[in-house]
Amino acid sequence: MINPNIVQKKSLRPIWLDDSQDTVKIIDQRLLPHKLVIVDLKTSDDVITAIKDMYVRGAPLIGVTAAFGVYLSVLSLLNNQAEDDFIIEECSRIKAARPTAINLAWAADRVLKRVLAVSDIQNKIIAARDEASIIAEEEVKNCKDIGLHGLEIIETISRNKNNATVNILTHCNAGWLACIEYGTATAPVYAAHEKGIDIHVWVDETRPLNQGARLTAWELGKSGVKHTIITDNAGGHLMQNGMVDMVIVGTDRTTYKGDVANKIGTYLKALAAKDNKIPFYVALPSSTIDWETDSIKDMPIELRDPDEVRYVQGLDNDVIKSVLVTPKDSPAANFAFDVTPSRLVTGFITERGICNAENINELFPDKIKMKNSLKEHEL
Amino acid sequence: MINPNIVQKKSLRPIWLDDSQDTVKIIDQRLLPHKLVIVDLKTSDDVITAIKDMYVRGAPLIGVTAAFGVYLSVLSLLNNQAEDDFIIEECSRIKAARPTAINLAWAADRVLKRVLAVSDIQNKIIAARDEASIIAEEEVKNCKDIGLHGLEIIETISRNKNNATVNILTHCNAGWLACIEYGTATAPVYAAHEKGIDIHVWVDETRPLNQGARLTAWELGKSGVKHTIITDNAGGHLMQNGMVDMVIVGTDRTTYKGDVANKIGTYLKALAAKDNKIPFYVALPSSTIDWETDSIKDMPIELRDPDEVRYVQGLDNDVIKSVLVTPKDSPAANFAFDVTPSRLVTGFITERGICNAENINELFPDKIKMKNSLKEHEL
Repeated sequence: MINPNIVQKKSLRPIWLDDSQDTVKIIDQRLLPHKLVIVDLKTSDDVITAIKDMYVRGAPLIGVTAAFGVYLSVLSLLNNQAEDDFIIEECSRIKAARPTAINLAWAADRVLKRVLAVSDIQNKIIAARDEASIIAEEEVKNCKDIGLHGLEIIETISRNKNNATVNILTHCNAGWLACIEYGTATAPVYAAHEKGIDIHVWVDETRPLNQGARLTAWELGKSGVKHTIITDNAGGHLMQNGMVDMVIVGTDRTTYKGDVANKIGTYLKALAAKDNKIPFYVALPSSTIDWETDSIKDMPIELRDPDEVRYVQGLDNDVIKSVLVTPKDSPAANFAFDVTPSRLVTGFITERGICNAENINELFPDKIKMKNSLKEHEL
Repeated sequence: MINPNIVQKKSLRPIWLDDSQDTVKIIDQRLLPHKLVIVDLKTSDDVITAIKDMYVRGAPLIGVTAAFGVYLSVLSLLNNQAEDDFIIEECSRIKAARPTAINLAWAADRVLKRVLAVSDIQNKIIAARDEASIIAEEEVKNCKDIGLHGLEIIETISRNKNNATVNILTHCNAGWLACIEYGTATAPVYAAHEKGIDIHVWVDETRPLNQGARLTAWELGKSGVKHTIITDNAGGHLMQNGMVDMVIVGTDRTTYKGDVANKIGTYLKALAAKDNKIPFYVALPSSTIDWETDSIKDMPIELRDPDEVRYVQGLDNDVIKSVLVTPKDSPAANFAFDVTPSRLVTGFITERGICNAENINELFPDKIKMKNSLKEHEL
């Protein structure tokens, strides 16, 4: 499977460690599709700002960015004492940047664990850099495998339709911009496109920050995948009228019981898919599975700045501007995620294959076992 | 019940006949909430443009505008022959301006019938003006009655909550801007507010043209009704979390069997309401009932300019601008309405009272009788 992230004839990732080894480079995704701007992150504060203000977004990418954030924290100690307490504290600050995507804490903690396991500062630096890079490459591999597993579903639909266009609806951006390479929800799309299957993607614009209209459309356009941008309101109508064959979305946190936190509005599409008997798949690497949370009510749902709803950003005469849509004094609320209950999910597409939403443990018995042994240990 | 449409200390309607009797005045709703601009309509072409380009929108208002459009057509004959064929042709052109709102054809035909019933041009002019004005006043009365009937539902919820805030979600704008006075979906809200019931409205922004964020928020703000603008994606999450007590929306066309065409996205909210056992009401005057169409599949759903999705209009330094949100070359689709099946609707709030969605004939036996006798006549 070919990596789809070719921009200006070069392979581009949304994050990488500069050759200098002291700077993390990221695409400032707030400015896409209008401007492609690369930003330098040199400190943990830079990393926190990049995550909080959504220069970077998407669960796997947030995880990798956080991992490199811990690395930059360790690196900042080079001329100082190697204080584990400081690193732990830095790690906590990074983990608090955004609440919903579980990859953030998962990745930061993985790097922290490696760092705390060695003693001198040079080894800590090497350990941090190594672990952050491993996480990044694991996510690439996971996404690639998700693509190959998901491809089978699309192939089956294509066969059943006698090779007529397979219409796939997606919400938000779970593409390579969110995941280093391939993407989660988009990986099967890219795999099918590469295989010459006739596909077309309905791209939910995904208010308020328009990650669909801005990022997914940009990605698919770059790869020559047929797509059409729609408002978030339109998906139900399309499904009622036979214009959607399947839905694939990503997720920011999925409980081991199968409940899926994802970009606000996902739940509405899942309801419409159920009502119209359309398969609704969630593509996720195991890094996005929450092995602890039992109840939907315990899922942390981020409440963001209402001005993200009140203003819309776009291009006016080649200048990026934010325009006020609402009355000056009308309040807005900005819930960033919702939770789709497992009963509405047809299946999960993971790096290990496809499973029923209520049966994650079937594919990840080792993780369930680890979770249970941890629980026993606590008791 | 007090008319809520007080702007700059004066009562304002979205449409009225100028004292000169040869000009129809409308609010250009495309520019709200940023600018309040009154536009003159002097010809049927002006009326068609105003309807098509959505200077005016909302089923009852489209109907009244069309009615005055037929009047302007008749008026244009003043110095010419009184040609019935010409008036019939003009009426057809006006009726073709937009396909979904049934009030358009209903109101235009009502005026036409009156005009064709009299012979000389002066009488035709008087008949057209009279009928258009009657339709406008009937819609005011209908909305007021919808308000009083809907108030009972809100009062009951308020009582059941021990007077805690009643949270009402609405989609698009079915306020007085859409309906001359009071509004349809908003009439019960204004009635409850006037009565001192503690209410709060979740206002769906309603992409692509943001009639919620622009118009409903502006209306509610002017009347001092507590409200919060949300993205169209958010309603499901709010309903899952007990933050919505009822949904009220308007409609552009509702079949006598109870299926509801309304602004795209309504169906998704109806699904979420059903999934969370939240009452979902549609407020409608009988002018919006389609007594002919049997099947959802026969509902005409308007497909509008994709640039309404690709660009968003708002205020930048006191200047209204349209900014491009999407990649320059990504296509978009713009379905303007969807159909909510009757099974998802708790009830209709009409000028004659509240009824079950599958039982409109209970409140309108006369209309059903008329429809049936027409059918027999055809046979």
